[in-house]
Amino acid sequence: MAGINKLVVLGVGLIGGSFALDLKRAGLVKHITGVGRSAANLQYALDQQIIDSASHDVASAVHDADLVLLAMPVGQMGAVMRAMAPHLSATAVVTDAGSTKADVVALFQQHLPAHLPRCVPGHPIAGSDLSGAAAARLGLYGGRKVVLTPLVETSAAAQAMVTNLWQACAAEVVSLDAALHDSIFATVSHWPHLLAFAYMNSVLARPDAALRLSLAGSGFRDFTRIAGSHPEMWRDIALANRTALLEELARTQTELARIAVALEAGDVASLDVLFQQASLARMAWQRGE
Amino acid sequence: MAGINKLVVLGVGLIGGSFALDLKRAGLVKHITGVGRSAANLQYALDQQIIDSASHDVASAVHDADLVLLAMPVGQMGAVMRAMAPHLSATAVVTDAGSTKADVVALFQQHLPAHLPRCVPGHPIAGSDLSGAAAARLGLYGGRKVVLTPLVETSAAAQAMVTNLWQACAAEVVSLDAALHDSIFATVSHWPHLLAFAYMNSVLARPDAALRLSLAGSGFRDFTRIAGSHPEMWRDIALANRTALLEELARTQTELARIAVALEAGDVASLDVLFQQASLARMAWQRGE
Repeated sequence: MAGINKLVVLGVGLIGGSFALDLKRAGLVKHITGVGRSAANLQYALDQQIIDSASHDVASAVHDADLVLLAMPVGQMGAVMRAMAPHLSATAVVTDAGSTKADVVALFQQHLPAHLPRCVPGHPIAGSDLSGAAAARLGLYGGRKVVLTPLVETSAAAQAMVTNLWQACAAEVVSLDAALHDSIFATVSHWPHLLAFAYMNSVLARPDAALRLSLAGSGFRDFTRIAGSHPEMWRDIALANRTALLEELARTQTELARIAVALEAGDVASLDVLFQQASLARMAWQRGE
Repeated sequence: MAGINKLVVLGVGLIGGSFALDLKRAGLVKHITGVGRSAANLQYALDQQIIDSASHDVASAVHDADLVLLAMPVGQMGAVMRAMAPHLSATAVVTDAGSTKADVVALFQQHLPAHLPRCVPGHPIAGSDLSGAAAARLGLYGGRKVVLTPLVETSAAAQAMVTNLWQACAAEVVSLDAALHDSIFATVSHWPHLLAFAYMNSVLARPDAALRLSLAGSGFRDFTRIAGSHPEMWRDIALANRTALLEELARTQTELARIAVALEAGDVASLDVLFQQASLARMAWQRGE
């Protein structure tokens, strides 16, 4: 595929930094400018050659961009779009890596109304509890999925450009309606994070939490890994997707009530059914079925 | 330390098999007999030299044992103790690897009342979603904790023998009251398993569960790993520790209600506090603080 001259990455962390590394390795981008709030993080990204130049000024960075990737927490995207709108090159394609999509679609419509044919909302499924440029790595996206939720106005050319670049990172690109995307990711990603936060807080509420945590093993380690995630990012996601999350909460309450009834009754047969169903489905998922 | 002549492992799986492998490697046991229900599993353990001989008959296996390890699901332990009681060597030490301890203490008291000075209830913290002799491996216990919950009757010599053998597996041995053990492990292990089962079932209840699961990523993978655990074993644990688990459920409900209220109100400050507290504590735990 044809490469591009200038990529601007707004937010040089795990997601934006890894995208930059892969495209540079593939020879598909001549120059990458990183924009962010933390001077130390940008300097690290420069030192590690994740980006070629750094800037704190969105306006000057985007005026000659071919592609702009918004890779900061969704809660900051509105302000950034507003700042770049008057300066954005008329031919630049704008995409994002936000974990929620209906809200980003609304932000594009609000802040970049004249630019919608070149807006391509996206979500690479490569989250982590790690953050910052130090978390960026080559090959992060290999075998991962990237969901695009194009607007009705999005041009085929803009969607193809973003699709091709993600495919060059060895990602599998999927298109979905934004609202369905948000419901699905509430189920398989956002809600587990909130559940892990809630569980962790339930342990911390105990006076002897330190003793209890000192005896936690590998099950705890894996189950709570996502409870170590970036709180600000997850607060934004929780608020942006709260309707779907409240539905997930109700569904979990239903399942917890089922287990509570079986536990209280000492109902062996019901616990067998509940645990077997979950275990078989989890093993099938692991095998890729 | 002095070794022993004959170890009998009842239940040659991840836990019992790994104990056998480590002790054999350390040269601390001359002969290991494995007892279990599955002929195929015992044959595998023989083939892999995890055990030296195999038996389906508890009575004949334990009559000349120096140490008996009960490493089957807790729900089967009562029947096994009853079967071995008339045949057990008067000098044999009996220990177990059950994930709950108050119930195992009660079983020892019920089925081996004359043998209590040589009963040492224990719990190696090395669970996994894997099971069977094929999951056994050398070094499983390195750096892991093993909790012993001795009876008032347990002799110092019996406790020392079991402690020394676990230490020879490079495990760290901790002593706790059985009831406190059960409460702690409800918090850090048993309840997370039930929460993972419940969450998994909430996904499966959706008509489009397959689509949703197809987009699940690494957060889902780690959060639900323990939902793939052995259903029969976890049903036994859930029933044995149900009082503590119902308390955990209530604590989780409290935390979920807190998140629900903040979500419904769009309360940024409260979500910040809830997520930050969980995230900081999880990161501190990971660092070993």
